[in-house]
This record gives sequence, structure tokens and C-alpha cells, in this order.
Amino acid sequence: MTESLDRTRLAAWRAYIEASQRLFTQLEEDLRADSALSFADYHVLVLLSEAPGQRLRMGELASRLVFSPSRLTYQISSMQRRGLVARESCPQDGRGSEAVLTAAGLLTLRDAAPHHLNSVRTNLMDDLDDAEVACLTRIFERLGRRLRAERDASTTHPHS
Amino acid sequence: MTESLDRTRLAAWRAYIEASQRLFTQLEEDLRADSALSFADYHVLVLLSEAPGQRLRMGELASRLVFSPSRLTYQISSMQRRGLVARESCPQDGRGSEAVLTAAGLLTLRDAAPHHLNSVRTNLMDDLDDAEVACLTRIFERLGRRLRAERDASTTHPHS
Repeated sequence: MTESLDRTRLAAWRAYIEASQRLFTQLEEDLRADSALSFADYHVLVLLSEAPGQRLRMGELASRLVFSPSRLTYQISSMQRRGLVARESCPQDGRGSEAVLTAAGLLTLRDAAPHHLNSVRTNLMDDLDDAEVACLTRIFERLGRRLRAERDASTTHPHS
Repeated sequence: MTESLDRTRLAAWRAYIEASQRLFTQLEEDLRADSALSFADYHVLVLLSEAPGQRLRMGELASRLVFSPSRLTYQISSMQRRGLVARESCPQDGRGSEAVLTAAGLLTLRDAAPHHLNSVRTNLMDDLDDAEVACLTRIFERLGRRLRAERDASTTHPHS
């Protein structure tokens, strides 16, 4: 198992993990400075803004964010205190609850998005040619699809 | 500024950020389950194991990890309590201090590495062909180099 990654793939992995962590740190610093939002705040706002009725069940949101239930509760409570989201019980299911985007949350996202996308452009995208953009899309769309499918299978059949 | 990313690049960015966050969550879960280490623990062990004398100044380590000084202090204190690293004052500089890999830290890394690299292989690398590996390396080596240079320039001349 020690030989499980050849030198070329180990170098690719290290370049990818190191540059990505550096990039995400830089983008989050920019986001906090421009809009007083964390990466997770921003991601929640985007997911809710795109959902039907701008609301998602907590379980669905946890699965989309790959957050544990306790981490999601903490995240949503923090956003609730800042007025960005509200929490409501599900109409269809008395036990479940939903996160709902507030108007203030939508306005915050609309203010933040151009700054954030500008920061993505200057820190990452301006430096990639079209072939590299296509390659990035192909690799990570396929990876995301596979990881989602694997996780859904393991949460549906946790003991299989 | 709202038009700062065209549709193709926005799709590439979203595929990359979403799949990467999903991947890093999965790899960290595997690392915790196999070796009781966080991603940050593992990264510190790798950096120290590769440094001359298996030691690095705290400032250098913070810069390599892109951690704030307070986050690094917290991280190293936690690893010190588990016996993975020790902290010593720098011989050349009475005010500075260094993190030093302990024998227990080295053995922990040697036990963890094959599991972790196996998890990188099965979750990411097995699914990439050689051209995709080359593309990943090219994009992220260049990005890492640029981000390091920009950050070094901004910490050396914070007001320029």
C-alpha cells in the first residue's frame, strides 16, 4: 500500500492540495474583508438562493454542504443571528425543519457575489487558458458526481 | 464586475470548488478513522518530516500552511499534547521558536501515510487518465507558485 501512488500522481496530488488550500484561504480572506462572510456562509446563501422557494430542508442542506448535522446547526444558528436565514418547521413533516433565505440574506448575497467572483477571476481563472478550463471542468464534474453517488449510497445503506 | 466570470468559467469554478470540498471532507474522514489525525495534523507532520533536522520555525510553518499565528499556536499545542511535536526556542534567535517532529510523530506519520495515500488514490487518482494528471499538475503547480509569491510580497511589504 506504500506504493499506492506513483511519483507523477503524488506530485499532482501535492500540487493540487497545496495550491487549493492556499487559494481557498485567500478567497475566504477576500470574502471576509469585502462582505463579512465566511466561505460556508456564502455557500449556504448560494444554495438557498437557487432552491425552489429559496428554502431547503436541513438534511438536504447538510448533504449538499457535506456537513455533519451538528456543524450545520451551528452554521445556520450563526446565520440566523445575523438575519441572513430563518428556520421553520417543514409543512410536510412535523419533525423536520427548513432553512429559509431572508430578504436580507438575498441582498447580502447580491452585494457579495460580484466581489467574490472577481476574486475567483483574479486569483484563479485569469491564469487558465480555455483548454485548462475545460480540463478542470471535466475532472471535477466527474469527481463531484462520483463522490455524491458514493455518499448517497453509504447514507442510504449505512451497513451495506 | 457582475460579468467578471463567463458561464464556462463559472461552471468550471463551481465544479472545482464543490468537488474539492467534498473530496477533502471524505479524505479527512478517512484520515480520522484510520489514524486519528486531522488534515492539518497530517500536513504539519509531512512538512516537518521533510525539513532539515525535522524542525521548522513557527513563522515558516505558518507561512507554508497559510495559517494565522494564533491558529498555528492552537494547532501545534494540540499536537504537542498528543506527543507528535515538541516546541523549542530557536538557537539563532532568542525570541523565535521552532516546532520539532518527535519520534512518536514520525512513527505516526509512517503509519498514517499508506492509508492516506490509498484514500487519495481510490477517491481521486484512479479515476484520472495520464493527460488529466498532467493537466492537474500544470494548473496547480503554477497556481501555487503564483499565490506563494503574491503572499510573500504582501507580507514583506504590507503597505505597498
